[in-house]
Amino acid sequence: MQTLHVELAERRYPIHVGPGLLNQPEQLSRWIDAPALLLVTDSHVAEHYLAPVESALGPRLQGIRVLPPGEAQKSMKTLDSLFDSLAEAGIGRDGAIVALGGGVIGDLSGFAAACWQRGIAFYQLPTTLLAQVDSSVGGKTAINHTSGKNLIGAFHQPRAVIADSTVLSTLPEREYRAGLAEVVKYGFIADVDFLAWLEGRIPALNARDADTIAETVTRCCAIKARVVAEDETEQGRRAILNFGHTFGHAIEGACGYGEWLHGEAVAAGMAQALALSCRLERISQGDHERGLALLRQLHLPVTPPALDTRTWLEWMARDKKATREGLRLVLLRGLGRAELVTDVPTESLEAVLQASSP
Amino acid sequence: MQTLHVELAERRYPIHVGPGLLNQPEQLSRWIDAPALLLVTDSHVAEHYLAPVESALGPRLQGIRVLPPGEAQKSMKTLDSLFDSLAEAGIGRDGAIVALGGGVIGDLSGFAAACWQRGIAFYQLPTTLLAQVDSSVGGKTAINHTSGKNLIGAFHQPRAVIADSTVLSTLPEREYRAGLAEVVKYGFIADVDFLAWLEGRIPALNARDADTIAETVTRCCAIKARVVAEDETEQGRRAILNFGHTFGHAIEGACGYGEWLHGEAVAAGMAQALALSCRLERISQGDHERGLALLRQLHLPVTPPALDTRTWLEWMARDKKATREGLRLVLLRGLGRAELVTDVPTESLEAVLQASSP
Repeated sequence: MQTLHVELAERRYPIHVGPGLLNQPEQLSRWIDAPALLLVTDSHVAEHYLAPVESALGPRLQGIRVLPPGEAQKSMKTLDSLFDSLAEAGIGRDGAIVALGGGVIGDLSGFAAACWQRGIAFYQLPTTLLAQVDSSVGGKTAINHTSGKNLIGAFHQPRAVIADSTVLSTLPEREYRAGLAEVVKYGFIADVDFLAWLEGRIPALNARDADTIAETVTRCCAIKARVVAEDETEQGRRAILNFGHTFGHAIEGACGYGEWLHGEAVAAGMAQALALSCRLERISQGDHERGLALLRQLHLPVTPPALDTRTWLEWMARDKKATREGLRLVLLRGLGRAELVTDVPTESLEAVLQASSP
Repeated sequence: MQTLHVELAERRYPIHVGPGLLNQPEQLSRWIDAPALLLVTDSHVAEHYLAPVESALGPRLQGIRVLPPGEAQKSMKTLDSLFDSLAEAGIGRDGAIVALGGGVIGDLSGFAAACWQRGIAFYQLPTTLLAQVDSSVGGKTAINHTSGKNLIGAFHQPRAVIADSTVLSTLPEREYRAGLAEVVKYGFIADVDFLAWLEGRIPALNARDADTIAETVTRCCAIKARVVAEDETEQGRRAILNFGHTFGHAIEGACGYGEWLHGEAVAAGMAQALALSCRLERISQGDHERGLALLRQLHLPVTPPALDTRTWLEWMARDKKATREGLRLVLLRGLGRAELVTDVPTESLEAVLQASSP
């Protein structure tokens, strides 16, 4: 078991990573230290992991909410129902939410915790690879609006994250692969050595080797923690974490949320961002191909769905990174180094979109 | 015109106080500096003040929402509809909300701004005395939950506050008086000299003398800014601003939100808190009477509604200041000095409640 500390301006919190952590009641009970708790999870996760967590938390657990699985829960309606559950459970300012699940559960519960009584504590027990490497660090919480993904939310840091690498063995194949997209992203944007490390472990990654996964999660969290600590509320530097995401959000939105998994859309989005980086001569043709090869070897999509250019541009303009001055995109300047670019030439962007369109 | 600066850990913002500010289009346009704006107001306020503000903001104004007046708008439903308006107006991360109205408009709009894209700017143009002396400083935003007032919210500081003292002349009598309750509160909790200053200006305050009001608003904001700067997210010291509020929230909740104006409930709540402070020998009998006399001279209620003790205690226990350890109350230690007290003897509290019950 490894413990990584995320250092922020006002406080620090630990991320515990290792196999079988959800089955260690004494440690769980010590790490989750608030006196009154509401546990939020979904029915898939509950089936496998609710029992040990429930029993570890004992009488401090004042309520349990088991939601249907899926992105549709990131809604005002479900948020409102969580507030009802918090009130019914009598969760006051010293209480907390325990989020047991993937990104949907973490984003939704974290936002509920951010708003309830203007901010109570929450603990993340991420059960997907994506949530372990992405949502665990950074404090971004949100729900969706009909006009776009994650448009309603808050920055709210967890009090602790407990990432059990054993739980990833029961993850459906698509969800595991979707998580690998974000893993590869950290290599692209900030650490070419990590990219090479991944390239050397393709079989182990595809076989979900437990040690390889634990090491991967720890390295990704460390990279993300470094980027987030530099820019806690996303004024600048932190935006590089959105590499591939403006394209990806357009894919998710245009196809209807849930059709493409977030990580799948990000993989295809990163392929677009690599292509645009290459077209603008920010990375070499060789680096472009090296990037695509890694995504393909991990069985990730590199071809976006058939959307016309106007649809692409409309959805991309809705992205939170759009400003009055026009679209801002995260592009590479060589592998392992991402930058936020504000002066992307429209014709280059359109050429990349058209090359991928039907 | 005076400009006061609220200094916070991460940034500062100005509060402009003076007569006729809403009718100075050039200054308004300079102070409200975001490139895209959604204006939120209510129909009462719109009747008097929307036109000059709308014209001052010109084409940057991308949308206007005129809500029905009243506390009922601090709901998830109205919040959700504001998100729709923000999306329709195309307000991105560099856009902002302009909140033109009293506390309800400020609390609701500020919370919408806190959540939209995880936080956009907002400008407060408070049009009630209560909003000018209370909501302008501190960054507390919230909506209500069926189980209690302001249970869902965020700390989100305005980018600027523009308090036009002329607008208070059109305020209904009850609302003006309700604002005076919070004015008196600042004297009770933090500044006995200000209390004496108020006692010397009863006729001017009752006649809404413009200069007296402007000076009053400036002094109240300065006191509040000092308290908030010491404790931005209400971990301790800031709680003294809630003097009279635990009782007051119980009055508002038990009678149905809107029956008692917030300030009226706070006035009666402060009378209860003075009585309890006196019973616990924290203030003298003379100070108790001096406090009640000031409230009465400003025509504020000092007698709470007829509630039985059980009802009082149930509502007070729901207050955000309740913790697992029991009720915490803000009490005085002499006039001009408030403290958060965690060990209030139940029998003393019940005696005060019973003395005021039918």
